[in-house]
Amino acid sequence: MRSKNMIPQDITLSRLEQGKRALAAIDGSAGEGVIDALADIAPDFARYLLEFPFGDIYSRPGLDLRAREIATIAALTAMGNCAPQLRVHIQAGLNVGLTREEIVEIVMQMAVYAGFPAALNGLFVAKALFNQA
Amino acid sequence: MRSKNMIPQDITLSRLEQGKRALAAIDGSAGEGVIDALADIAPDFARYLLEFPFGDIYSRPGLDLRAREIATIAALTAMGNCAPQLRVHIQAGLNVGLTREEIVEIVMQMAVYAGFPAALNGLFVAKALFNQA
Amino acid sequence: MRSKNMIPQDITLSRLEQGKRALAAIDGSAGEGVIDALADIAPDFARYLLEFPFGDIYSRPGLDLRAREIATIAALTAMGNCAPQLRVHIQAGLNVGLTREEIVEIVMQMAVYAGFPAALNGLFVAKALFNQA
Amino acid sequence: MRSKNMIPQDITLSRLEQGKRALAAIDGSAGEGVIDALADIAPDFARYLLEFPFGDIYSRPGLDLRAREIATIAALTAMGNCAPQLRVHIQAGLNVGLTREEIVEIVMQMAVYAGFPAALNGLFVAKALFNQA
Amino acid sequence: MRSKNMIPQDITLSRLEQGKRALAAIDGSAGEGVIDALADIAPDFARYLLEFPFGDIYSRPGLDLRAREIATIAALTAMGNCAPQLRVHIQAGLNVGLTREEIVEIVMQMAVYAGFPAALNGLFVAKALFNQA
Amino acid sequence: MRSKNMIPQDITLSRLEQGKRALAAIDGSAGEGVIDALADIAPDFARYLLEFPFGDIYSRPGLDLRAREIATIAALTAMGNCAPQLRVHIQAGLNVGLTREEIVEIVMQMAVYAGFPAALNGLFVAKALFNQA
Repeated sequence: MRSKNMIPQDITLSRLEQGKRALAAIDGSAGEGVIDALADIAPDFARYLLEFPFGDIYSRPGLDLRAREIATIAALTAMGNCAPQLRVHIQAGLNVGLTREEIVEIVMQMAVYAGFPAALNGLFVAKALFNQA
Repeated sequence: MRSKNMIPQDITLSRLEQGKRALAAIDGSAGEGVIDALADIAPDFARYLLEFPFGDIYSRPGLDLRAREIATIAALTAMGNCAPQLRVHIQAGLNVGLTREEIVEIVMQMAVYAGFPAALNGLFVAKALFNQA
Repeated sequence: MRSKNMIPQDITLSRLEQGKRALAAIDGSAGEGVIDALADIAPDFARYLLEFPFGDIYSRPGLDLRAREIATIAALTAMGNCAPQLRVHIQAGLNVGLTREEIVEIVMQMAVYAGFPAALNGLFVAKALFNQA
Repeated sequence: MRSKNMIPQDITLSRLEQGKRALAAIDGSAGEGVIDALADIAPDFARYLLEFPFGDIYSRPGLDLRAREIATIAALTAMGNCAPQLRVHIQAGLNVGLTREEIVEIVMQMAVYAGFPAALNGLFVAKALFNQA
Repeated sequence: MRSKNMIPQDITLSRLEQGKRALAAIDGSAGEGVIDALADIAPDFARYLLEFPFGDIYSRPGLDLRAREIATIAALTAMGNCAPQLRVHIQAGLNVGLTREEIVEIVMQMAVYAGFPAALNGLFVAKALFNQA
Repeated sequence: MRSKNMIPQDITLSRLEQGKRALAAIDGSAGEGVIDALADIAPDFARYLLEFPFGDIYSRPGLDLRAREIATIAALTAMGNCAPQLRVHIQAGLNVGLTREEIVEIVMQMAVYAGFPAALNGLFVAKALFNQA
């Protein structure tokens, strides 16, 4: 287990504060955009999103953020029905140290498990993001 | 990019031979069992399985096997309809250096992206394998 | 079993006529738009859509329309690949008496079963509809 | 369009009777088993199953049964979560004239669109059926 | 909005305690079985399962438990890859006041949105549970 | 087995060349567009796409191209999350001899297996393509 590239858990923080810290470290402004977009329709859901995925899961010490984003990019590519979240997590992957080439490898590998269309659509999400950056 | 924990590409090998080498390194006897089970129904598919996923994809140098198995375990857990393959790849994860604790982290994280049932079912696949080993 | 908020079955009606009546009561003009859009490509499918889902299923007395729309909104959110139909059925939910707050609860709950991305995408479909209405 | 290998539509039959005729021609005893298994839990659903899929869809003249079973075997393999129905339709494919080799081709092809696990699991359903026959 | 058939929120309880209370009210012993089964492989996940789905979501006042179980049974049937959880929630539906007939209606309706195989497989899960009870 | 409407296998060709020939025969310019779009992000994936699906699978003699496109259109409609690929393969179906009416039959049939939303969305992909041609 590695000690770097993790969200330090600070037991004096609430789950919400811990989640905000994790979200900022991982997703940056894209994460904040999602939280803001929820404000008028489901503010409690914005809170849950900070607390459970980010405050609980991504803040756990057992796996570094590089590994966590590999897992998330793979899953979102394979599921194939959540392009906006895949885009956010490809950016998150870059934020936590994955290279563009590594991200492309992960997405390509999904052709084996979820088929070529899922991999193709994932590659085009990555391409659009890389071209914009 | 790391230089260790990869399948060395040997350009004197055919894709089939390269795939056999990768399958043995990653999946061990479970992989051979799948190949054998295909022999009487679809032997060409056994060959494709060696050539494309293992000869082409897993033998690529751009991502080490630890990262590749993180991606595969995540995707198979999230897809939720391929328990036999998830079992093979949890074993493969152990083979290439993931710890049981890391595998449990990856599967747990899928609750965020694919829901609690998918993560639960993945954890029970892991539990059955760990208890048997 | 409740007697209100159901499509009265009229055995003098054909399934097609019964289905038209149910579609109008549930989906309103959005339902008619789907039927019209099918006219030139698959008119028989428009008929099946009226007859089976609406003439047969939604007209059954065993469950009121409020409960039926809860089920449909939940399923379409969880499946995550049919945003146009989810939009139609969020409107249908409002038509048969669900409040905006109840619809948001149903969609949020899907985070547990289908993951946060499915729930997020469902919430944004609801938000777009509510903002337009 | 071919005129053979279709369920002749007999306009003097009810949809239910037309569906029973189609089910018998396509699925044989496996189809009857499903209908019987529904008798005590959801007899109306047994009727819908005869009327809509078999009385309406499979009885349409626009596509022969060989083509219809190719489509169904492909879809059920790709979806990957309905092994019992895939088994019934692999038998149905044999009933309407597909060879074992053609069925294996269809299932193998799904590796491209839905990934290797879906194709593998489909092949093992076919193998179990072929070995039993 | 109805005031009955909800888990009373007690702000003096931790999320974990609130979740335990909700799980007991909804899933009964089947829920405890899941928690116990996680104890040796992923005890933190057992805690998350109590805290987020049950402590946070099912304890919210905006929707009664009858409506929540309609949504869950519908979603699990439509997703089609989580039979163990569907079984638990069909029992939960009975626990919170749904009748067998209403549950059958919900599952049947999923044929419209997720296809006949998903509905059939859901009906057979219900049948097995009803026959055992 | 039919001898016409297949990609002749030429053992003097590399898999890549065989795949290019098959892609051109099946998908025409839409296929080339996909290959071109991959050039800057994942050129190796463009090669795999030519080699495995088209060089290996579609070039196999065991099933004619009409049957292969029936299978692919059915699967992509049922999966419901790959509209761009469905569009390419509806065009491919026309290229290899399916009529518009036959394609509509295949897509409609998917309502039985994957639900009405999947079939509806597939019909609208077909309609958009037919209207443009």
